Order: sequence, then C-alpha cells, then structure tokens
Amino acid sequence: MAEVIFPRLALVGIGLIGASIALAARRAGVVGEIVVTTRRPETLRRAEELCLGDRYVSTAAEAVADADCVIVSVPVGACGAVAAEIGPRLKSGAIVSDVGSVKASVVRAMQPHLPGTVSFVPGHPIAGTEYSGPDAGFAALFDNRWCVLTPAPEVDPEAVTLMVAFWRALGANVETMSAEHHDLVLAITSHLPHLIAYNIVGTAAELEGGIRSEVLKFSASGFRDFTRIAASDPVMWRDIFLNNKDAVLEMLGRFNEDLATLTRAIRNGDGDTLLDLFTRTRAIRRSIVALGQDTAAADFGRNDHAAAETKRAQEETPAD
Amino acid sequence: MAEVIFPRLALVGIGLIGASIALAARRAGVVGEIVVTTRRPETLRRAEELCLGDRYVSTAAEAVADADCVIVSVPVGACGAVAAEIGPRLKSGAIVSDVGSVKASVVRAMQPHLPGTVSFVPGHPIAGTEYSGPDAGFAALFDNRWCVLTPAPEVDPEAVTLMVAFWRALGANVETMSAEHHDLVLAITSHLPHLIAYNIVGTAAELEGGIRSEVLKFSASGFRDFTRIAASDPVMWRDIFLNNKDAVLEMLGRFNEDLATLTRAIRNGDGDTLLDLFTRTRAIRRSIVALGQDTAAADFGRNDHAAAETKRAQEETPAD
Repeated sequence: MAEVIFPRLALVGIGLIGASIALAARRAGVVGEIVVTTRRPETLRRAEELCLGDRYVSTAAEAVADADCVIVSVPVGACGAVAAEIGPRLKSGAIVSDVGSVKASVVRAMQPHLPGTVSFVPGHPIAGTEYSGPDAGFAALFDNRWCVLTPAPEVDPEAVTLMVAFWRALGANVETMSAEHHDLVLAITSHLPHLIAYNIVGTAAELEGGIRSEVLKFSASGFRDFTRIAASDPVMWRDIFLNNKDAVLEMLGRFNEDLATLTRAIRNGDGDTLLDLFTRTRAIRRSIVALGQDTAAADFGRNDHAAAETKRAQEETPAD
Repeated sequence: MAEVIFPRLALVGIGLIGASIALAARRAGVVGEIVVTTRRPETLRRAEELCLGDRYVSTAAEAVADADCVIVSVPVGACGAVAAEIGPRLKSGAIVSDVGSVKASVVRAMQPHLPGTVSFVPGHPIAGTEYSGPDAGFAALFDNRWCVLTPAPEVDPEAVTLMVAFWRALGANVETMSAEHHDLVLAITSHLPHLIAYNIVGTAAELEGGIRSEVLKFSASGFRDFTRIAASDPVMWRDIFLNNKDAVLEMLGRFNEDLATLTRAIRNGDGDTLLDLFTRTRAIRRSIVALGQDTAAADFGRNDHAAAETKRAQEETPAD
C-alpha cells in the first residue's frame, strides 16, 4: 500500500477530470477520505451512485472544511467564485489546486480570495476525452500523460513537492513552469487546434443541404477527427478562449499568415512549397510517436485491427 | 467461394491502397490472377516479398495486357502518364478504374488516352491511414467504408455494375455521383481538413526553439490528432491540392469567413457566440457516431482502455 499523501481530499466539481482524480487517487491509495461536492444536485447524486467519494456535500464551503488538499475541477470561468466561497473555510496549511486548461487568468481569479495560510499550487493535467460528466471518468486517464504545475515562486516548496508526488501517484509525469509560459504552450498545442476544429465543423454545418448530409456520410477522411475534437465540452472551451485570449490571438495570427502562404501556393500551382511543408509535418508526427505521446496505430478511431497492423505499418517502405 | 468478377486484375501502383485492394480482393475470392506493377523496382520487389500478387512486371503496358480490370493506384498527378502508357495495350472490353482522391482532373487527364473499346469507371475508396507503401496495406481497410464511383453518363452500365460488385466484395459501401460533385464534397470532408492540419503543424514547427520542443511534449491535447492527419503521404497530397484547386479554394474562403467571426468573438469576449457554435459542433459529432462512420471510443489514439470504457462514457450525464 502506498503512503497516504492527503488524509482528506476535497474535490470541488466532479466531471470527467474530477471523477478521474477520485478514481486514480483511490487506485493509488494516496488519499484517506475523499469529500465530493458539485453545483448540480443530480450530478452529485450520480457521483454517489458511482461511488466516487466517501462523503457528498452540497456546498464547496462545507466540502473544504479540514481538507488537506482541495482540487477545484470546474470550468475556468467558475474558479474565482469557488475561491471566494472556500477561502474563509480553508484549514491553515491546506493546499489548494485546480485543473484548468488556462493558468494565468485562474491565478488572477483565485489568488485574491485565498488566505496567506494556505498554499496555492495551480495545476493542469493534460489529459481528457471528448466526453464530460462523472460517468466519463476513469482511473487510467492520467497514466503517462503530463500534468503541469504553475506555483508562484513564493509558494512553500513543501506544498509543491506534495502535489508533484500526488500527480505522479495518479500516473502522470509532472512538469513545473510559470502560468504565462503554460498558457502560450497550450495556446498552440491545444487551444488553437480546438478552435480550428470547431471552426471547420461549423463551416461544414453551414453548407447547403445536399452537400451537408454527404459531409456526415463521407466523414471518414480527415473531417471525422476534427468532429471528435469539436465534440469537447462547450462551456469548458468557451471559458478557455475567453481566458487565454491574448495567447490564442497571437497563435491565430501566425496560423493565418501561414495559411495565406499555403493558399497562395495552391492558387499558383506551386507544388514545391506544398511538398516541402507536407514532408516537414510528417517528420513532426514521427517525433511525437517517438516521444511516446501517441501510438503509431493507423486506426483513425477503428480499434479492431489497429494493434495487429501497427507493427507491419511501422516497417515503412517508400511509396511508389 | 465467391464468384470471380475479374479473371485477371492488373494493379498499377502498389502503395497503401493498391496493396489493400490486392489483399481484400484475395480475401473475397473475386479475382483470378493479380498482376502487379509499380514504378520503383524496390517497391515491386517488396510487393513480391509480401505476396501481394501472382505476377510482377516492370511496366504498366505489360501489366494491363489481357487484363479484365485495371486499377491505377498512383498519385493523382501521375494518372495521365499511366493512361497514355496503357491506353494502346488495353484489351477490348476491359474496365479501367483508379483510386484518386480527386476525380474531375483525373478524368480530364486519363480519358483522352483511353480507347472507345474500354469502360472508364473512376473510383475513390474513402479509406486510408497516415502510412504509405505496400507494407501499410491490409485486407480490412475498406470494410464498411465508402467507395465513390464517378462514371460518365455514357459509360456501359454493365461495367459500372461490375465495379460496384467488386468494391462491395472488398467490404465497401458504394455510391455513384458526378466527378464534380465528388470533388466538392471531398474538398470539405477531406482536403480542407488536411490542409488545415498541415498548416497548424507547420505553424508549430516554426515557433521559437523553447516553445517548439514543448509542443511535442505536450501534444496530447488536440495537436496530436492534427499531426496524425499531417503525416499523410506528401506527394499524394500535393497532387490533390494542385488538382482540386477550385473546390479547395472555395471551401477555404468559407472557412476563413467563419474563422474571422470566431476571432472577433474571442477578441470581444463574446461567450454566447462561442458557446452556440461549440454546442452545435458537438451535435454533429453525435450524428457521425450514429451513422457508424466512427466509434464513440474516447481513446484519442490510446487503444488499451478504450473499448472497456466506451460503454460507460456513452451513458453521458450533464457536466457540473
């Protein structure tokens, strides 16, 4: 049995991430009691049916009483209000963390409400699926995924050490950086891809009727992968774009410049420019597979044959 | 044993698609002899090592002699030259087909070289992976995928019927439409998504060193799915964009208009516009899963736990 890191863990919000934290923490044996709270009564009931915690309470203020660690897993736009509610009720020495996909604005929203006697260690586990709600949670969600922590320089190093140990116990690899740097990296790796996926699926939805129905039918050729990304939780993603505006607009600007170049190459029939880009992007994919951040399975969402075929497919020979 | 549809099938080009046709046709038992040819000697040798055909010849002209059906599976830009080479050697009554992702320009390139005694039934199996070359082929590639045929109105209906039967035997669902309509539908479902994926991966590759290495590290959040798409065969995709220029530029124009609206919403902090779009796109994803064109597995490329968790994840409850 692993050592208990937090005798009492309070989870404020129990969607995909909160539920997965509960299941992974229990799997690892690193928490004593898990107290669960969430805004909607029906979600709290569902969490109880799924046995995600040990106690279920209806307010965040009640949940955090005597908790050694509080993890706020709500949409980024709701973090400030939660901090205001729990601030006066936090135990001295408690650690407060969150899981928001944006960090600088969450720090700005939460920090002023937290007393000086607690340690604030903001976090972002880079893991998820296109599903949401407590039923979507599973214990292996964080396995071999990154969790980024963005504590301010003055935060008690002991608290940071505990949060690093906690996330490692949940299966994640942990990295520490500033909130601002996190937001810039995530703008290009996550926020811009989601924005583009939402946009292209939206463009397709606006097509004239005859073509629109065929878009769904013949989606298995690129579009389908975009729809999976564009099926992510709408409220969560609205809040991300509103709260990481500057970094997203910066990356969007670069994206648009590059797209203008590509558009011009197509218009002018400039095959060399296209071939050069397409060859470089293929190499990047190989780096990601080599880094273990994805499998090489050529499955495109089809799991049946993928595993068996991967090995063959990897021994690539040049195409004709 | 199924009935033989083509006593002799000639495959010109033996990459991912050509190899998969060979394996699927053999699996279905609908061809007699399979003759394979391809431009590069080392690829032809590899095809022979993989036992993809019954005979291996070094020129397309030689391969098509006495063939009942010839399927040209080469990059779209090379189809015209192949047609010029095989035209004079085709057996009277033979069927000529292809697998190109663009149809109108392929018809323009190939048709003039084909004698009036053969039937030209252009085709496009909407299936693939990001791998290429004969090693990447597998017999199940076309199972439950669409294959679009675009025969001209004057083509012998008997030839179309045989090609429909052939692709059905290979596991595909078959649909017939005009080459022009095909190119418009594919521009939005396939060509634009690929262009955007290539572009965003390219934008990331151009970032300053410090951020660029972290892009690979933290790719598991949207970007990774784009890199998979952007790892597709560079020559094939160069040819697609050069040969479906008008439809791609048309869809790109719509995409840019929508992206401008979305950018403005982010800049102005207009959460309602964002939430409205994100809610609509989620519904589109559900339609695609319902149509059987993808699984609901929340795997994002991770096959290990996906199957077991899918059922739970599907019983979605509202997020907090």
